Amino acid sequence: MGQEPIRVGLMGLGTVGSGVVRLVKNHQEDLLQRAGRGISIEKILVRDKRKERSVQVDPALLTDRPEEILHDEGIDLVVEVMGGIEPAYTCIREALEGGKHVVTANKDLMALHGTELLSIAGDKGCDLFYEASVAGGIPILRALTEGLSSDRISAIMGIVNGTTNYILTEMTRKGTPFADALANAQDLGYAEADPTADVEGLDAARKMVILANLGFHTHLSLEEVPVRGIRDVTTEDIRFAGQLGYVLKLIGIAKRDAGRVEVSVQPALLSGEHPLASVDGVFNAVYVHGEAVGETMFYGPGAGEMPTATAVVSDLVTVVKNMGLGINGRGIVAPYCEKRWKSPREIFAKHFLRLRLADEAGVMAALTGIFAEAAVSLEKVLQVPVSQGGEAEIVLVTHTASEHQLEAVLRRLDEMPAVRRLMSHYRVEGGDR
Amino acid sequence: MGQEPIRVGLMGLGTVGSGVVRLVKNHQEDLLQRAGRGISIEKILVRDKRKERSVQVDPALLTDRPEEILHDEGIDLVVEVMGGIEPAYTCIREALEGGKHVVTANKDLMALHGTELLSIAGDKGCDLFYEASVAGGIPILRALTEGLSSDRISAIMGIVNGTTNYILTEMTRKGTPFADALANAQDLGYAEADPTADVEGLDAARKMVILANLGFHTHLSLEEVPVRGIRDVTTEDIRFAGQLGYVLKLIGIAKRDAGRVEVSVQPALLSGEHPLASVDGVFNAVYVHGEAVGETMFYGPGAGEMPTATAVVSDLVTVVKNMGLGINGRGIVAPYCEKRWKSPREIFAKHFLRLRLADEAGVMAALTGIFAEAAVSLEKVLQVPVSQGGEAEIVLVTHTASEHQLEAVLRRLDEMPAVRRLMSHYRVEGGDR
Repeated sequence: MGQEPIRVGLMGLGTVGSGVVRLVKNHQEDLLQRAGRGISIEKILVRDKRKERSVQVDPALLTDRPEEILHDEGIDLVVEVMGGIEPAYTCIREALEGGKHVVTANKDLMALHGTELLSIAGDKGCDLFYEASVAGGIPILRALTEGLSSDRISAIMGIVNGTTNYILTEMTRKGTPFADALANAQDLGYAEADPTADVEGLDAARKMVILANLGFHTHLSLEEVPVRGIRDVTTEDIRFAGQLGYVLKLIGIAKRDAGRVEVSVQPALLSGEHPLASVDGVFNAVYVHGEAVGETMFYGPGAGEMPTATAVVSDLVTVVKNMGLGINGRGIVAPYCEKRWKSPREIFAKHFLRLRLADEAGVMAALTGIFAEAAVSLEKVLQVPVSQGGEAEIVLVTHTASEHQLEAVLRRLDEMPAVRRLMSHYRVEGGDR
Repeated sequence: MGQEPIRVGLMGLGTVGSGVVRLVKNHQEDLLQRAGRGISIEKILVRDKRKERSVQVDPALLTDRPEEILHDEGIDLVVEVMGGIEPAYTCIREALEGGKHVVTANKDLMALHGTELLSIAGDKGCDLFYEASVAGGIPILRALTEGLSSDRISAIMGIVNGTTNYILTEMTRKGTPFADALANAQDLGYAEADPTADVEGLDAARKMVILANLGFHTHLSLEEVPVRGIRDVTTEDIRFAGQLGYVLKLIGIAKRDAGRVEVSVQPALLSGEHPLASVDGVFNAVYVHGEAVGETMFYGPGAGEMPTATAVVSDLVTVVKNMGLGINGRGIVAPYCEKRWKSPREIFAKHFLRLRLADEAGVMAALTGIFAEAAVSLEKVLQVPVSQGGEAEIVLVTHTASEHQLEAVLRRLDEMPAVRRLMSHYRVEGGDR
């Protein structure tokens, strides 16, 4: 323990960066015990050196030039918490190529360039850890790579965006419409001024790509993932779903059957008994199904200064331990499974459909005929009173059907004049237990 | 990858042992990729070599003499899944002293002799892993030692015994009395013929000692942990608790404040919103509160052949990886925090009390006077109709009070003639959010 402390260059001093500074300072003694060496933040990259900060730092540490960290031979480890693709990508690349270990919280970057950066890290004998990039304080990446390393993961389902989960929880509990719930989330600082990445499901998709690549040992690209956001979700959908025993959540779904994978993000209905169904507010949770272990779930804060900083600094501790053992870069397992996407004929789920129908004789028979023709059977049917004259509303939940079958049904419904409108449709998960 | 496989000696071929054999066999290719070397089970210790097995093994591998494994220089790694203290303790000691790495699922042993065995392992440069000893398939020990390594853990609460959680779930959902629910659990194989260790809370206490020692970096002894089982829990208690918004669970509680710890196991009431409240049936979950990360929870199967085997084989993969890196035994952090138990004046909780009172004038005033005298204020009061004449029943929930205060109240209640009987009392957790 008499060794010099590890010299760290911190890139970014926003929310997470400030948390890292605080945690390293407040837990100094514990970190020394656990890592075997002290941790010293030597330089901090900021955009504006004169800006006032919520955390106290020696102004002499601040710099606005990345090369002051990247070209400093004395710095062993770079912590990147700037976010976004550039300059983060260039900085991390350069750090790794210069033999520096990297800890990052950057999901955008890891979803897009993770495989490439990990391969550089492996070549250079550097660690590249990114636990904080998915589900903030939940150590889910370690669970996948180590805790469940003996198992074959068959499904990963995640509530991995706290903003949308908060909005949907408000819509569910209080009946608040989407726009108001979003405004509340913005007032509380849970949603950004431009909420697109959260609300459209893009943020969740990035995290799901990271999870699926780790869990399935493959290399999937973000642009291949179908994504649907929550803008069109209505409180009526949520209420009808509730009547049938379901909860509506923005769910990332990654499944693997016989070596073929599917990954998607969408608002979906969960059976009330599913472990994810009771995950409310800004909390995150990742459900992992392994062939041998069965159902597991990892729950915790998905964002926030200190939770995310905890994940960053835990990675930092691992890098320091690895340095003591001389094993940096050795933990990286290159993706060894070929990428094979499922076709729409191989993706199976139940589906919830809400339809506005003409209130005429024979409509129900015609409707159920369409499902029968596509060999899709119905599990639940709910007739809903409608105030407008001449129309009836009906809510259906199918038994398990392929996406291909569902598309056939939707096409036929669209052609049927008595179907006035498809109000909404959602995938349904977790009702088979 | 051209290396010889790691030679493993398996001690025990019961439920978990069979699962280990199955997993190593079925996941051979994956394990090779992840561990970097094959895994070969070379010898299996059994009590009766002629007994029929649910898993197919080469009879030539079976032995009934531990020394055939312990004295075999070619065996690098011992997997102990016999359970119980002896001969497991002697075997593991001998294995470690002979320089063999050990993976065990033995909670009894690790709760009693964990600190000693870990210190031998450290001295000998051997790994000793025991993920499977707590909460079966949930990688909770890794979460504590690695995922949350940068944080200071302030509380660990666990539903770590599936048998009692199943029984309490049946009692809650169906109103089944304790004895019948226990009998059902035995019929289903969830409870053993002698259910003492589960029902009396001893099994949970062992797991809590392991968790608390890891989370708090200290060395607590099993016999210091107050334990109360669920034999006296009634369906009435559960029903009244439910009316007040609580769920009754057997909870292991480990908390640390200002360096002082408490660890206990008891049936306790959880606020319905607590993440542990929805953990039902044979599932386990461990809730971890860290100063920085806040609330996290780890959920999964607490027992069973394949889930437990997953934890064992994941440990095995880590040993093999560590062998490749030459770092066995280096991950063991000796307990560095002094053991300091809280006094009853430092243990705080809310409490639920159910009392049978004489139905006389002035009783309520006298009763509330007792609480006021001990400076315990009341949060909830529920008057319950009683069929028997001359008696009234009342359910109280206090605000947070010390154990010392509660004891004073209980003593005074015992002396008060109008209090006919203290029907039950439980600690209450998680209602402050």
